[in-house]
Amino acid sequence: MSNYFLESEMESYKWNRKNLLGIEELTPKEIKKILKLAKFFKKGINGDPIKKDYLKGKRIVNLFMEPSTRTRIAFEIAAKSLNADVISVAEQSSSLTKGETLRDTAMNIQALGADAIVLRHSSPGSPLFLSRLVDVPIVNAGDGAHEHPSQALLDLFTLHERWECLEGKKITILGDILFSRVARSNFWALSKMGAEVTFAGPSTLVPKQFQSMGAKVCYDLREALEDADAVMLLRIQHERQSSSHFPSLSEYTNIFGLNNDRKKWLKEGALILHPGPVNRGVELDSELTDSSQSVILEQVSNGIAVRMAILYLCTNSEYRADK
Amino acid sequence: MSNYFLESEMESYKWNRKNLLGIEELTPKEIKKILKLAKFFKKGINGDPIKKDYLKGKRIVNLFMEPSTRTRIAFEIAAKSLNADVISVAEQSSSLTKGETLRDTAMNIQALGADAIVLRHSSPGSPLFLSRLVDVPIVNAGDGAHEHPSQALLDLFTLHERWECLEGKKITILGDILFSRVARSNFWALSKMGAEVTFAGPSTLVPKQFQSMGAKVCYDLREALEDADAVMLLRIQHERQSSSHFPSLSEYTNIFGLNNDRKKWLKEGALILHPGPVNRGVELDSELTDSSQSVILEQVSNGIAVRMAILYLCTNSEYRADK
Amino acid sequence: MSNYFLESEMESYKWNRKNLLGIEELTPKEIKKILKLAKFFKKGINGDPIKKDYLKGKRIVNLFMEPSTRTRIAFEIAAKSLNADVISVAEQSSSLTKGETLRDTAMNIQALGADAIVLRHSSPGSPLFLSRLVDVPIVNAGDGAHEHPSQALLDLFTLHERWECLEGKKITILGDILFSRVARSNFWALSKMGAEVTFAGPSTLVPKQFQSMGAKVCYDLREALEDADAVMLLRIQHERQSSSHFPSLSEYTNIFGLNNDRKKWLKEGALILHPGPVNRGVELDSELTDSSQSVILEQVSNGIAVRMAILYLCTNSEYRADK
Repeated sequence: MSNYFLESEMESYKWNRKNLLGIEELTPKEIKKILKLAKFFKKGINGDPIKKDYLKGKRIVNLFMEPSTRTRIAFEIAAKSLNADVISVAEQSSSLTKGETLRDTAMNIQALGADAIVLRHSSPGSPLFLSRLVDVPIVNAGDGAHEHPSQALLDLFTLHERWECLEGKKITILGDILFSRVARSNFWALSKMGAEVTFAGPSTLVPKQFQSMGAKVCYDLREALEDADAVMLLRIQHERQSSSHFPSLSEYTNIFGLNNDRKKWLKEGALILHPGPVNRGVELDSELTDSSQSVILEQVSNGIAVRMAILYLCTNSEYRADK
Repeated sequence: MSNYFLESEMESYKWNRKNLLGIEELTPKEIKKILKLAKFFKKGINGDPIKKDYLKGKRIVNLFMEPSTRTRIAFEIAAKSLNADVISVAEQSSSLTKGETLRDTAMNIQALGADAIVLRHSSPGSPLFLSRLVDVPIVNAGDGAHEHPSQALLDLFTLHERWECLEGKKITILGDILFSRVARSNFWALSKMGAEVTFAGPSTLVPKQFQSMGAKVCYDLREALEDADAVMLLRIQHERQSSSHFPSLSEYTNIFGLNNDRKKWLKEGALILHPGPVNRGVELDSELTDSSQSVILEQVSNGIAVRMAILYLCTNSEYRADK
Repeated sequence: MSNYFLESEMESYKWNRKNLLGIEELTPKEIKKILKLAKFFKKGINGDPIKKDYLKGKRIVNLFMEPSTRTRIAFEIAAKSLNADVISVAEQSSSLTKGETLRDTAMNIQALGADAIVLRHSSPGSPLFLSRLVDVPIVNAGDGAHEHPSQALLDLFTLHERWECLEGKKITILGDILFSRVARSNFWALSKMGAEVTFAGPSTLVPKQFQSMGAKVCYDLREALEDADAVMLLRIQHERQSSSHFPSLSEYTNIFGLNNDRKKWLKEGALILHPGPVNRGVELDSELTDSSQSVILEQVSNGIAVRMAILYLCTNSEYRADK
C-alpha cells in the first residue's frame, strides 16, 4: 500500500476484492470503507482535495462499449487526479474489437499491462463475465439495466455528507425503475446502509416484483413523496425501452413530473437527487433542479472522489485468487 | 501565484480577469502581459521552452461543440506542457450534452472540478453567456463569426518577434472578412497595439460597415497590398457561408488570390500570415506559402506558448466576483 | 542522453537514425540495440517494468490516417509509461487535414513542437515521403502493405525471449502474404537475425516472386509446418484486398486453417504467433489460440516495451542531417 496514508489508517483501507461489479455483493463495511476513502480524497488532510501520486504508474483503461461521456469523463478525471495513465477505448473506435470477442479484447487489454479495466457495456453481467476470465480488476461503469455501482456510491456519499447517518431514512426513487441500473444499485446501497427505499412511478415501469427485493412499491406520487427524506428522480430513458411504457412524455410529466406545486407534498428540507442529465420540465421542473433542495451538482462533484476511492482500492487490492 | 517566477516578475504576471472572451475587451497593457508571459514560456530562462509544473493539478476541459482539430490540439499541447490534466469533450461524443442545455453542460463540468473551460462554439457570444453562469474561467477558442482571441494573440506574438513594435505598422487582412472571427479579433489586437488595419476582399465579403470599427476597407487588391507591412490571408470558409458571396473559387483566386505575380505589389520583406489550413492555390499560391516571407509555421509554433500564457493567467487570476 | 542509464550502458544505446521507417533498412546491430533496450524497459533493473521519466517533456503525436486501435493504444501506453505527452490525431477528426496535404499536416505537427510523429497510413512509402520533408522523427506504425516495423520487432523480441538466439531457426509465415506489411517486416527482421523464413498460403496470396527476397515459398501446409520452429499466422484481411483471392473464408480455413488436427504436423514445442486480432476458427482454431504453444498475448505485452525503446531511441537520436 501507498505510504501516503498514516500508518494508523492503513488497516482501514485494506481491500480484499479484485473487482467492483455491483453493490449487491458488497458488505456494509466495504461500502463504508469506500465512502471513508472518498472523503479522504475529497477533503484531504488540510481541506484541499487530494491530487497526488496515489496511482502513479498505474494504467487505467476505460473500455466503453456503449456511448457515455459523463461517467467516462468522471473516471478519467479521477484517475488523472491520482496521476494514473488513462487510456480510453470507445465503442466508435471499434478496430480493437473488430472480429474480436469481449473476452479477447479484455485479454489483450490485460496483456497491454492494464491495472484496471473500467467497463461500460449494454449487456447485464458482462463485467462479471469478464472478471472470471482475466486477472485485471474490472470496475463496472454500468452494465445494461443491472448495476451502476459508482453512481450509487456517489449518491450515498452525497446523502452521507448531509445526514451523517442513513439509518431509518426514507428515500423514494421515482421514474423508470424497470430499465434503471441506477435504481437497482441505489436500492442495494441505501438498504445496506439502513435506509428504506420506495420505488415509485407508473406501474408499467415499476413492476410489483420489486417488492421481493425488499423495496416498497408505490404508484401514487403524493404518497411516495410525503414520507420521503430524499427523492431521487431518474431520467426517462427512451433509448433503453423496447416498447412504449407510457403514452407520451407529457403524460408522464402530468402524472409523475416533480414540479413546484407538488414540491409542497415533500417534507421541508427533503433532498432532490438526479443522476443527470436532467430532462428539465419532464421528470423535474427547471426551478427545482436549481433549487437549494437539489444536490444534483454535489452528486457530480462527489463522483470524482468516489471514483478515486474505487480505482485506488481495486488497484491496491490484497485479493489473491486461490487457483 | 506559482513560485516558479522570480519575485521581481510576480507583479508583472498579475491578472484580474476570470475569462478570455475576446480581444475587444482587453486593454493594451493586458495584451502585452499575455505576450510577455508567452515569450517567457517560449524562450524560458536559458533558451529552452518551458515545460514545467506551472499548471500541475489543474484540470483543463476542452469543450469543443464545433469540429476543430488544430485549435484543440494546440490548447491540449499547451496545457500538457505545463502539466495540467486535459479532458476533451468533443461535439461528436454528445452524450454529455444529450438533452442538456449548454448551461447545464458547463455547470456539470464545473462540478467535475474543472479549473478552466476552453470553449469552441458556433454561436457568437456563447462564451460570454457561459461566463455569467459559472465561476470557472471560460477561454474562448472561437465563437461563430465573433472572436478567436488566442489566434489573434499568436498573430500579434509572431509580428512582435519580427518587429518588436507594431506602432504605425500597416496590416492588410484579405479575404472572407464578413464571416471571420480571426479578422475581428485581429482587428482589435492590431489596432490596440497601434497598427493600422485594412480589410480587403470582394465587397460582398467586406461590408463598408467595418469602417465604423476603425478599419480601412479596400476592394482593390493592388492598393491593399502596396502599403502593407504584413498581409494576413484568410481561408475561404465555405462552411460558414449561408449563401454564395462570390461566383466561384477560381473567380476569387483570379481576382484576390495572392500569387507570385502579385507578390511584386508587396513591399520588400512584407510578411505573409495565414491562420491555416491554407487552401494552396486558392487564396495563396503554394510557392508563397513556403517562401521566406511566410511566417505561417511560426504562427503555429507560437500558438503553443501563447495558449500556455492564456491558460496560466486565467487559472491563476486574482479576479474575485463582487457578488 | 538521459542520465537514467548507467554510464557504462550509454554507449550501447547510441542511435544514429532519425526515423524508424522499416526493418529492411536496419542493420542486425541496430535491431539488437532496440531489443536490448526493450528488454531493459520490460525488466528494469530489479525485475519491475520501467515506468519513469525517460521521455518527460517529449511530445509524441500519434497521426493515424487509417483506423487502428491496437497499435495506437500500444504506442500511447508506451509513451505515457515514459512520461511523454501524447497527442492523438485520428483520421475521423479530419479538420486538421481538411484541405491539407499530408506534408502540410506534418509541417504543422512539427511546428506544434512534436518530438516524434507515429504515422499509420494506407499508402506504402508515406513515412519515407514525410521523413524527407520534416525534421521531426517519423515512426512508421504501418504503411499500406509495405512495412510494420514495430510489429516485427515485438515478434522478434518474443522469439528472443524464448530462444535467446534465432540463428538457423525456421519460421513459417502463413496466410495473406501478398497484402501483409507484417509478413514483409518480419521477413526482414527474421532473416537479418539469421532465421529462415518460409511464406506459405494459397498461391494467389503468396506469389513466387517473394523468393527473390530470399524467402522460401510453399503452397503445401503440411510441408510448411513440419520443419517450422515457429509458425506465424496472419489475419485474413478482407479490407485490403481489391478482389477475391480465394473462393471463401471457409475454403481458406479448410485448406490453410491451423487446427488441432494439423497441429500434429508441427514439431513439439513449435511456437504459434499471430499479430492479432485472431479470427478464431478461420486462420487459427480457438483452442490453439489459447494453448500453451501460443505466444499471442506475450506478443501484445512485449509490444509496449519494444515501442518504449523505439520512441526513446528516435527522440534521443544523435542523427544530424548534413544539409
